[in-house]
Amino acid sequence: MKILVVNGPNLNLLGKREPEVYGGQTLSDLISELQLTFPKIEIDSYQSNVEGELINELQSADTNFDGVVLNAGGYTHTSVAIRDVIAGIDTPVVEVHMSNIAAREEFRHNSLISAVCVGSIAGFGKHSYNLGIQALRNYLGQGH
Amino acid sequence: MKILVVNGPNLNLLGKREPEVYGGQTLSDLISELQLTFPKIEIDSYQSNVEGELINELQSADTNFDGVVLNAGGYTHTSVAIRDVIAGIDTPVVEVHMSNIAAREEFRHNSLISAVCVGSIAGFGKHSYNLGIQALRNYLGQGH
Amino acid sequence: MKILVVNGPNLNLLGKREPEVYGGQTLSDLISELQLTFPKIEIDSYQSNVEGELINELQSADTNFDGVVLNAGGYTHTSVAIRDVIAGIDTPVVEVHMSNIAAREEFRHNSLISAVCVGSIAGFGKHSYNLGIQALRNYLGQGH
Amino acid sequence: MKILVVNGPNLNLLGKREPEVYGGQTLSDLISELQLTFPKIEIDSYQSNVEGELINELQSADTNFDGVVLNAGGYTHTSVAIRDVIAGIDTPVVEVHMSNIAAREEFRHNSLISAVCVGSIAGFGKHSYNLGIQALRNYLGQGH
Amino acid sequence: MKILVVNGPNLNLLGKREPEVYGGQTLSDLISELQLTFPKIEIDSYQSNVEGELINELQSADTNFDGVVLNAGGYTHTSVAIRDVIAGIDTPVVEVHMSNIAAREEFRHNSLISAVCVGSIAGFGKHSYNLGIQALRNYLGQGH
Amino acid sequence: MKILVVNGPNLNLLGKREPEVYGGQTLSDLISELQLTFPKIEIDSYQSNVEGELINELQSADTNFDGVVLNAGGYTHTSVAIRDVIAGIDTPVVEVHMSNIAAREEFRHNSLISAVCVGSIAGFGKHSYNLGIQALRNYLGQGH
Amino acid sequence: MKILVVNGPNLNLLGKREPEVYGGQTLSDLISELQLTFPKIEIDSYQSNVEGELINELQSADTNFDGVVLNAGGYTHTSVAIRDVIAGIDTPVVEVHMSNIAAREEFRHNSLISAVCVGSIAGFGKHSYNLGIQALRNYLGQGH
Amino acid sequence: MKILVVNGPNLNLLGKREPEVYGGQTLSDLISELQLTFPKIEIDSYQSNVEGELINELQSADTNFDGVVLNAGGYTHTSVAIRDVIAGIDTPVVEVHMSNIAAREEFRHNSLISAVCVGSIAGFGKHSYNLGIQALRNYLGQGH
Amino acid sequence: MKILVVNGPNLNLLGKREPEVYGGQTLSDLISELQLTFPKIEIDSYQSNVEGELINELQSADTNFDGVVLNAGGYTHTSVAIRDVIAGIDTPVVEVHMSNIAAREEFRHNSLISAVCVGSIAGFGKHSYNLGIQALRNYLGQGH
Amino acid sequence: MKILVVNGPNLNLLGKREPEVYGGQTLSDLISELQLTFPKIEIDSYQSNVEGELINELQSADTNFDGVVLNAGGYTHTSVAIRDVIAGIDTPVVEVHMSNIAAREEFRHNSLISAVCVGSIAGFGKHSYNLGIQALRNYLGQGH
Amino acid sequence: MKILVVNGPNLNLLGKREPEVYGGQTLSDLISELQLTFPKIEIDSYQSNVEGELINELQSADTNFDGVVLNAGGYTHTSVAIRDVIAGIDTPVVEVHMSNIAAREEFRHNSLISAVCVGSIAGFGKHSYNLGIQALRNYLGQGH
Amino acid sequence: MKILVVNGPNLNLLGKREPEVYGGQTLSDLISELQLTFPKIEIDSYQSNVEGELINELQSADTNFDGVVLNAGGYTHTSVAIRDVIAGIDTPVVEVHMSNIAAREEFRHNSLISAVCVGSIAGFGKHSYNLGIQALRNYLGQGH
Repeated sequence: MKILVVNGPNLNLLGKREPEVYGGQTLSDLISELQLTFPKIEIDSYQSNVEGELINELQSADTNFDGVVLNAGGYTHTSVAIRDVIAGIDTPVVEVHMSNIAAREEFRHNSLISAVCVGSIAGFGKHSYNLGIQALRNYLGQGH
Repeated sequence: MKILVVNGPNLNLLGKREPEVYGGQTLSDLISELQLTFPKIEIDSYQSNVEGELINELQSADTNFDGVVLNAGGYTHTSVAIRDVIAGIDTPVVEVHMSNIAAREEFRHNSLISAVCVGSIAGFGKHSYNLGIQALRNYLGQGH
Repeated sequence: MKILVVNGPNLNLLGKREPEVYGGQTLSDLISELQLTFPKIEIDSYQSNVEGELINELQSADTNFDGVVLNAGGYTHTSVAIRDVIAGIDTPVVEVHMSNIAAREEFRHNSLISAVCVGSIAGFGKHSYNLGIQALRNYLGQGH
Repeated sequence: MKILVVNGPNLNLLGKREPEVYGGQTLSDLISELQLTFPKIEIDSYQSNVEGELINELQSADTNFDGVVLNAGGYTHTSVAIRDVIAGIDTPVVEVHMSNIAAREEFRHNSLISAVCVGSIAGFGKHSYNLGIQALRNYLGQGH
Repeated sequence: MKILVVNGPNLNLLGKREPEVYGGQTLSDLISELQLTFPKIEIDSYQSNVEGELINELQSADTNFDGVVLNAGGYTHTSVAIRDVIAGIDTPVVEVHMSNIAAREEFRHNSLISAVCVGSIAGFGKHSYNLGIQALRNYLGQGH
Repeated sequence: MKILVVNGPNLNLLGKREPEVYGGQTLSDLISELQLTFPKIEIDSYQSNVEGELINELQSADTNFDGVVLNAGGYTHTSVAIRDVIAGIDTPVVEVHMSNIAAREEFRHNSLISAVCVGSIAGFGKHSYNLGIQALRNYLGQGH
Repeated sequence: MKILVVNGPNLNLLGKREPEVYGGQTLSDLISELQLTFPKIEIDSYQSNVEGELINELQSADTNFDGVVLNAGGYTHTSVAIRDVIAGIDTPVVEVHMSNIAAREEFRHNSLISAVCVGSIAGFGKHSYNLGIQALRNYLGQGH
Repeated sequence: MKILVVNGPNLNLLGKREPEVYGGQTLSDLISELQLTFPKIEIDSYQSNVEGELINELQSADTNFDGVVLNAGGYTHTSVAIRDVIAGIDTPVVEVHMSNIAAREEFRHNSLISAVCVGSIAGFGKHSYNLGIQALRNYLGQGH
Repeated sequence: MKILVVNGPNLNLLGKREPEVYGGQTLSDLISELQLTFPKIEIDSYQSNVEGELINELQSADTNFDGVVLNAGGYTHTSVAIRDVIAGIDTPVVEVHMSNIAAREEFRHNSLISAVCVGSIAGFGKHSYNLGIQALRNYLGQGH
Repeated sequence: MKILVVNGPNLNLLGKREPEVYGGQTLSDLISELQLTFPKIEIDSYQSNVEGELINELQSADTNFDGVVLNAGGYTHTSVAIRDVIAGIDTPVVEVHMSNIAAREEFRHNSLISAVCVGSIAGFGKHSYNLGIQALRNYLGQGH
Repeated sequence: MKILVVNGPNLNLLGKREPEVYGGQTLSDLISELQLTFPKIEIDSYQSNVEGELINELQSADTNFDGVVLNAGGYTHTSVAIRDVIAGIDTPVVEVHMSNIAAREEFRHNSLISAVCVGSIAGFGKHSYNLGIQALRNYLGQGH
Repeated sequence: MKILVVNGPNLNLLGKREPEVYGGQTLSDLISELQLTFPKIEIDSYQSNVEGELINELQSADTNFDGVVLNAGGYTHTSVAIRDVIAGIDTPVVEVHMSNIAAREEFRHNSLISAVCVGSIAGFGKHSYNLGIQALRNYLGQGH
């Protein structure tokens, strides 16, 4: 089982800023830890701040991965194009957010991509990724 | 660690209707299976179709449980009173939904309770409860 | 043919208040009269002011009745949970209102339950129930 | 007792299209059947695709009929002018729809004419007309 | 100077209904009185309940009249097509209403045609037509 | 018959600015001309840029004038307080505007005061005042 | 004079939670104190988290009490059914809130019940109940 | 292949007004030119300012034509009834507009009929009709 | 303890108009009666129809009074500037209204100032002022 | 005559996915076929999933091409920046869509770019591009 | 070059309140400092809490000043009348705000006056005035 | 002091298009002129049409510059991701626009980024950048 973890804009800053809040763990640390937690799953990772590059990656994931865990960051709320690529590929996508977006600004309450993902997980910090992998593993195990 | 799983309106029908879709597993089967999956956690369960009884239960959970996994069903979208009890108790609450509510009718896109829960999980069928327990266990383990 | 007539909040006051407007006929008089009008149909009746009890009753109606005539009163405009139970049971439900809700306050113009009922009847006073029974009888006679 | 059944745009196509759905019964068959069902009531019928001609007919109905059963079709949602004529004449008007308009597109959920009719009936196919006649007969019998 | 007074849906009922409110004066009486009041102006009149016939009349007015006084009735609030014909012809049009539409239902507060008329007059009963003629006469006298 | 013409903010600039558009006629010229046109009516005039002073004036007009012609300028769209004073006094008020406010910016389409005035006249330049006086004279002559 | 104080969802937690904010006074303390403050008024009290039970209580209050002081808690913003019972009973109802709801979340700014109560009092903590009793006493003393 | 070109309100004025903008070509010239451009297609044409007559024509087109090119003019934005007839007939309909309606007033941005047409073409002046015929020819050639 | 009672636009008309409704009591009578009811509190009063003068008064109240009872009349719904001064001064302000504004026109349901006042009281006629003074006295007595 | 065909996000998947629906034709096949159909026009093609690269290409097209046929895909509904570049360059742009966007999700009904294009074509599958080229050729032939 | 600095409601409190936040500098200190910073510009200043007095001042500024720096305070969001005077005078007006209004309450995000000013500056505390003067000087130096 | 001037989509066209309006000055000329005007500040410049590249640049600016002047062009109104990076970095950002965006299309009135910038400057053409630098210099000089 191969899973791709895709991170959108500003998530490359993880661990470098506000370490007192989020800990000193970087995005690459987070991915390594995920790999350790799920040794039987081959986990790959991609991050970009460019909307179109995320689309490129999701397109190519279609033939190379069994599933995708996606934190689309700020594009969650504005990108019809990312919605379209998720709807267009066969690979199942699980939406994750570290923060509880429902508890933040009004414009973050609406996600354009939730409806075309398998499901959504939000609010559990870095653990949201862990839950996303499990959700995907369970989903794939059911023969979908 | 003691966790209460609270289910709102119509979830008592689980397993009794559309078994070809959801399987023959009833709500009580689901709770038993959860208990088997998490043997070290004491799991209790409550279901009611009455909004106020759910509030009563959540109030009493405050002193008896370390956390709550809540599927508020149809009250998710209409109950300020359930939001108030979640905000008012100390016990952390994780919101779960079996279906991907963002892919259903417009009036299901808005959750009145998300903002006062720790986080939300939606779209993974019965596995959403499993993820909810894990999210809670992780959250509690962090000393919150 | 067995039909259940379900009445929501405040309809238990029928006949006790404003008799000069609605006549002295109580809810129980109304049900008796319905039974007399339709002697070949077994008519049962339920009233509650509690949203969840109405859900309980509608759930149990599923196996005991051929159809339901429902006046959900004030819950018509606010209850996703009642909508869910109607959508979830096999028994057909006909929505009735004594008053012409479109001619009243703005917040009464929208019914959350109409879309999952067979159809709706509003504005004909107590006769709305009579029409509801007939609509149901005709619907059931068509083999739906 | 004389009742006029008024049908708006596209209802002249009844029975000619999608006979596997609506049966082979035409609008004129439907009216004949209504007359047979209510032999003591003199039933007349009018259909037009032209908004203004419907207004003309409703105006002249004022002095010639005891009541009107109106299926305004697509004009239900857009015609202030038909609302005005209903409000302006003394003859009571009952609104009927064959389909459950609340279960269709958003723009069909709002009826401009309901508030000025005696009441509304929707969702029971051709039987909606039958119920409309009965509603009117009952209303007229009450001395309104 | 030739002026056409155009009346939309239901205005042909004038004087025939609610005479204790509007007086017994019919639309034709009103036009006669206008002609007496403005003997030097040639006043013609047209009424139809059909939106398209009002458009036909307004089109032909373009070459035959110096100006139009228009009470579009219920079409005021719904007709883009009447707006288009007013914008499309050279003859100036003055909008009149007998009632104070701002004091009536919400959907009557918006006029689709005001913006393409010279100006609007509302609320003065039958005298609104008199003021409309004067407004037009003054407008035409300024060499517009 | 005594009539007060009340002008709101910025109407004191009349005739002083853009004379090539509005002519060189000042507000005081306009009032004088009105007086000449209606020699049998005693016409008084008031202008202020201060919302509260307009309210003061309208209050005192109640006992001193038979009617008011009011051009509330920019306060037309924002002042509940001016609406309240119009509704509170017995003297009838006619709303006038020189420009066709429906053809200007969106926020000018809504008038907070129309509903409590006798009627409204807009779009006829300075002639709107003339029509306003006539409307008032006619209204007062009817014994209202 | 007999007055019923009705409290909705979560108000039974009063005094038990956040005592440093609200003091250690429980709901029952609050009622006792009210009785002491108004020795000549017979004060009764009811609390429930169940919407329908609040309706039941308000119905029965109609014949047993001279007035009701109601803090509907979270149901204030969502319950058409409670609005209906207030409108349906003769006993006057005064709405109270301990917090200033206008200063809280957007969805708390709208009260469905204010329009059918005698009046509303919000923002004065426990003293809001005291003011509510006085408002009711004064209202009843005026012979309403 | 037989195609009907249907034109709605005010399009009969084509070529007669603003010839410096649209050229001196009338609607009948335009149809003739279309016939010349597509000699193998039998092109018929209909124009009416009356909404209901357009519906009549579209109904009868169902059995007589292989496809329809429709410029519904102002009814594009207001007619549910025309939408219904397009949805109800088998003949495919292509929507055309001479102007770029998205660049005009806000109320022209929404088309009620686009969703039930094969497709839409707007903004190319008279050439829009030419493109409409080609779109239809291509569509029909695909065996739809 | 010194309290200032501030009244906004049109409240100077109190007692002079509709005495059969509000009694013959003027604003000055009302203030005198308040002073008699609360002999230990020094009560001062200010009324103006001018928004800016109310702001001036509220600014100067900051150093001269312990609290303010404010009936902002029509400015309640439109004045950001009055909201700003309330938020800017230290003196606590209690909002009062004689009428039940929630039961009046839609545009009166929203108060721009409630959120920055201590609390609000509406619907109790002149007694609202009495309750406002008590609310303020209680608030000041708590050491805020 | 040189025309650039620009395709936005996910259109590079054409022909590779859902071949049973769209046929096996790739984007490059489509362009080749267009070139064959219009041998006298020099057709160039560009595709990118990156919003900014599409802007770069449109900027450079300004001096190199006579016109652009643009299918902006998901950016159609969200990109003010693409709207700006279309408005900013002299080269005329024609908007095309393969699907009938008006018949899809609500958020696809609004196009941010239509108003600054020459015109729009939607719903004709791959033939939309063919029509776009013709529309452009005709437009350029008119000397614009 | 003569510039008038106009300040709206509550800005007279500057320096007197919250000196630990804004410093002890009063509005008059601020104006003096501006004069020192721009010795070659003649700077005059006006403040009022009264909307209409601000309009009076802006009208008279038209002939006496080369430009205006305006901080309209709370009237920024509610005053059509101030918008009208800015649009009506020739003197250019620059809008300034000390706070970043986009980061405050929702109702402060919309400025009714921005569109008729030369430009806007917000968020730089007292330095906003300094920037406003420079913006004006530059604008005037360009010969506008 | 080191300041980065960041320009978003289409601003690379500056000076190349419409030179009669904006002058022949290119973006690089503008930056050079800024450098000359502020010789003591080290000014660097970046432009991209790609949303993600702007984010990359803003991220790296965090450690290399004391402040940023940002004209986000069309992304101003649509980019949550750019808002997030501004909120996430420590370097202060000042928003500038050459045009008065409040006077342009409705969708340009809302800026998603203003609330997280220090402040905003709009409407002064190229001089907006000059003011932006000064605002930043002043802000930095205050020890923020």
